[in-house]
Parts: sequence; structure tokens; C-alpha cells
Amino acid sequence: MKIYDLRTPALVADVHVLEHNLDTMAAALPGRRMRPHVKAHKCTALAKRQAAKGHVTFCCATIREMEGMAAAGLGEDLLLANEVLDATALGRLDARVTVAVDSDATIEAAAKGGVKEVLIDVNVGLPRCGCDPEDAGRLADLARARGMQVRGVMGYEGHVVGQEDRGLRVLQCEESMQLLLRAHGLAGGDIISAGGTGTYDCNIWANEIQAGSYVLLDTSYAKLGLPFRQGLFVWSTVISVAPQYAVGDCGLKSLGMDHGNPSIDDADVFFCSDEHITFIPKTPVRVGDRIRVWPAHIDPTIAYHERLHLIDGEDVIDTWEIDLRGW
Amino acid sequence: MKIYDLRTPALVADVHVLEHNLDTMAAALPGRRMRPHVKAHKCTALAKRQAAKGHVTFCCATIREMEGMAAAGLGEDLLLANEVLDATALGRLDARVTVAVDSDATIEAAAKGGVKEVLIDVNVGLPRCGCDPEDAGRLADLARARGMQVRGVMGYEGHVVGQEDRGLRVLQCEESMQLLLRAHGLAGGDIISAGGTGTYDCNIWANEIQAGSYVLLDTSYAKLGLPFRQGLFVWSTVISVAPQYAVGDCGLKSLGMDHGNPSIDDADVFFCSDEHITFIPKTPVRVGDRIRVWPAHIDPTIAYHERLHLIDGEDVIDTWEIDLRGW
Repeated sequence: MKIYDLRTPALVADVHVLEHNLDTMAAALPGRRMRPHVKAHKCTALAKRQAAKGHVTFCCATIREMEGMAAAGLGEDLLLANEVLDATALGRLDARVTVAVDSDATIEAAAKGGVKEVLIDVNVGLPRCGCDPEDAGRLADLARARGMQVRGVMGYEGHVVGQEDRGLRVLQCEESMQLLLRAHGLAGGDIISAGGTGTYDCNIWANEIQAGSYVLLDTSYAKLGLPFRQGLFVWSTVISVAPQYAVGDCGLKSLGMDHGNPSIDDADVFFCSDEHITFIPKTPVRVGDRIRVWPAHIDPTIAYHERLHLIDGEDVIDTWEIDLRGW
Repeated sequence: MKIYDLRTPALVADVHVLEHNLDTMAAALPGRRMRPHVKAHKCTALAKRQAAKGHVTFCCATIREMEGMAAAGLGEDLLLANEVLDATALGRLDARVTVAVDSDATIEAAAKGGVKEVLIDVNVGLPRCGCDPEDAGRLADLARARGMQVRGVMGYEGHVVGQEDRGLRVLQCEESMQLLLRAHGLAGGDIISAGGTGTYDCNIWANEIQAGSYVLLDTSYAKLGLPFRQGLFVWSTVISVAPQYAVGDCGLKSLGMDHGNPSIDDADVFFCSDEHITFIPKTPVRVGDRIRVWPAHIDPTIAYHERLHLIDGEDVIDTWEIDLRGW
């Protein structure tokens, strides 16, 4: 099948870019130094490619992702890097399951759900989940008292990973990780889990990195000068052309919009509607032409699609189900 | 089942609000005066409720929506209010199929795909699809020459429907519709199709209105002072509480973000991440509490979810599949 045979809009990845990105990360952070975050792609077929590169420990953001990874035989060491108040589905999984906890209530839920291992989730500056670093020891003791093993700590410096100035990124990463190391000293355990695509090479304090977006990147991460390349686009058909602009058949339902408009080569994107993208081409386009629309944020883009087509040049060489969507 | 039994995040609609909105629209625009747009909800179960209120003609934005509506027995009069370059799937449907065309190429595609009826799509001011009004007659002649019936014209005043000043909305609607009437004069046919939820009552020039969002509304449309009510929310669990803020378990993958942040009653929303919403509560919340997160734009919100739960008070009385997603 050729790329031109796909019904549009279609989610497409360049297999050479994917392989380059996977190899680059596996060389930089081999084996368990890297714990790929499946939330970025929600695709067990892609996770299997990561495992083939040596990364057999994974991170998830939802219970559904944990269930799907376990069912796909990728349950050697699964971390739910997120808090849940009902862990019963997790305790039943045929997998090694570790869950993030940051409060008495989430520890209680993990214990009640039959979860055996936890990480203490620590707030390292991003206003989201995670306990005060000074509370990490008390929570670890509480988890142990409830019969669970505390494998260590995690803390996501999400406010740092997108910092475009590398010097500032390194500095802020260190500040965040000092908080995590302080918490680790109080909580104990072997694991110090942190990081993301933007800090994979400068976070030298964590002993495992939770990166996801590196697999295919997006226009936001592409600004950081990382050695990964952009390989994911929404393949779209030009359905209408006016004197001043043209319209493609993808839009708000096929693109995550929180990081702003996507990009089109050789064009300025004007705006997106539900199933349309209006753009101003710099070279003439005709009705029926195909365009590559590059998302600003891959995670919520991929989550809209049922499948991901892999291409080698113009050949569609494989189609992977985005099988970890939903909740 | 109670609403508290749902795994979160979950898409929930209040059945009384839905019924109120459906009844209000059916009273204002009975029968074929209203052609509900299924792109808003992508749910054949909800479309069947609209049909039960007397609206048996429908509008779709994608081929998948057309296929699903036909398969659900809702194919009495389906309009694909969008341009396509490959209409072969449409020509095969067991339904009355009409397709929007705005160029020689889309007319050719419709004819080649076995489509029998078209509407000439006219640009009435929104920079998206639609021909120049002056070109409508030529395109209608071309469609007829290719053996298709021209049922009339359509033109979506999408740049007007969200105008908060009602006086301005009415004025701009009239300006747009004058363009559509001019095109209708040139193209002929019975149908003048236009409008949306924001102009359903002031667009007195079209003889059928293509509204979608009125079924459950969102925070954007709620600003217009329409007689419809907001009835759709993402049901979410508070998973972490810090001194200054709290975190719910829904985010960028369960909420369309193009119209900005969603809203939470009695709280200010700070920001959303993939699976999180950080908010500043005005009254204390605890870990495990549930919150209603009101989307700013329902169409791309619903498209993220597999199903919609209907509630009556705290009872979940039905669960509908969002079966028209994807392409």
C-alpha cells in the first residue's frame, strides 16, 4: 500500500525517524536507565519496539495503559506514574506493578487494591501531583506499615522539560532534582525516577528517566535542539482552494491543540476547525494534493487516532493500533 | 449504577438537560427545518433521540459519520456537509446521500463515486470551504452535466455563530445569507442550508439549519444567552491536594482545548496536562472527591471518548457508544 492510498486524515510515522530516535535514546540511556512513558504513544506495538531496544521497564499514566501493557506481555516492570483512588484493577494484573502515591489516601487505595510496590511521588516544582519533599519519609513509612515495598521516589520536572534555553533547563533541572534527592534520603529505596524528553541528557541525578515524546517528537520539542527528529504527521488531503488560502481535511479532532496550531511545510497555518485546517500556502497547491500536518503536541494528537501507519518513503509498511486509548 | 461507580475520567450528560435542549430546538425548528449536525456528538444513539423529536434529516462532517448513520438506520436524508476527493464509499451507502461540492474536482469526485445528489457549498465569509457565490451557477451546471441532481446550496456562517453581541450576530448573519441567496439564485434547487447553534433563531434566510452543539452546549456557547443549557461534563476524581491547588484526573486527552481551558464549579482552572487538571478550589476539596469539568468546546471533547454516560441525578441510566469517531 502507498501513502496515497490512505483515507485521510491519517496518522503517519516515518519508520526511519522512529528507528533513529529509538536508537539514539537506547545508546544514551541503555536498558533500565530509561523507562519509556507509553502515555506519549498509547501503542503496544511501539512499546515492543522500545523493548526490542533494551528498555523493558515502562511507565504509564492510566489504569487502561497498565492493563493493555500487561495484556501485551510487556509487564516485566510497569510503573503507574500517577495517583489513583481505586487500585483494584491494578492488584489483579499479571505483571510487576508499581504505583505512585503522594498522600495517605492514595497509599490506602494502593494497599486496598492489592498493590505490592509503590514509589513516593514528590513535588519537584511542577504544580501537579507529588508530596512535599519533607513528607516523603512519613509516607514511605506509612506505605511500609500497610505492607507494601517502597521502591524509591519519583518526581517529574515537567515545568523544566520544555525550557528552550538549555543553560536554564540544566539549572532548573538540578534545582528540582535536589528536592527529589532530599525526598529520596527520607524515603529510601533503589529508584530515583524522573525526567522527560527535554531533560533526558541533563538529568544526571535520577537513575531512570521517564521519557515519551522522543519517539517521534513534535514541533514544540523540535525547538530544543535535541538529537531526536520529528517523525509524526497527520496526512491530509487539500479539499478546497481559494485565492488567498487552502483547506485540508484534518482539524481539531485529529490534532492536540493545547500547544497551539500545528505546522505545514511551506505554508502558514491560519486556523483549525473540527475537521478542517485553513492554511496559506507559500507555493501553489491544488485540490486533491496531500499535505503533512505536523502536530505541536504528539500525546493528545495520537490519542485521537485509532491507528498509526508506518511509512518507508511512500510505502506503508505497517499499521499499528493505538490500543491504549480511553480509560 | 451510580455516577460514583464510574471509572474516571468519564464523559457524562444530564438527561434532563439533553431533553430540554432537544425539545427546545424541536419546538423552534420542527422537522426538516432543522438538520442536526452529528459531528458535534458522533453518537448514533443521540441521533436517534433527535430523530424521535422529528428531525430525520442529518448532516455529517466525515465519511465515517455517513457510514455509521446509514448503518444505524438513520439514512433517510444524509448530507455530507464537507468536501471529499474520494466518494466511492458514499456512492455505495444504503441511504439517501447528498454531498457538498465547491469545485470542479469535488464535483468530478462525487460523480465518479456514484453520488446522485449534491449541494453547492458557498463561501459566505468564513475562510474555509465553499465557492465564490458568483461561481455557484457554473458549478451547478457542471454537476447537472455530470448527471447529478443539484438540491440547492449550503453556506456556513461559522465566523458569526460565536459572536457574543446578538445585534452584531444578526447583522453579520444577514450579510452572510445575502451571499448565499445570491448563490441560490444562480444554482437553483430547493434547499438553502446554513446556520449553527448560535444563529439557529436569527438565520431566517436558510430553510434548514445545521446545528449540532445545542444538544449539550459548552462554556463557549453558554455565553450567548441561548435557551439551551450546558449538560455535558467530564467526571473526574481529585487525586492530589496541595495547600494552594488540587489536581483532577482528566486533562488534554479528555478535553478539546482549542477554545481554552475547561471550567470547574467553584474553582479556577490553572492548567491541564495530558491526564491532569490543576485547579484552585474556592472551597476545600479532599483527595477522592469528584468534580464536574465543563469543556469549552464539546465537539473535540466528545471525540476523545468511547462512550457517553447519561445521568438522572446520581443514577447512570444509560451508556451510549460514541460510535462515529475516527475516519
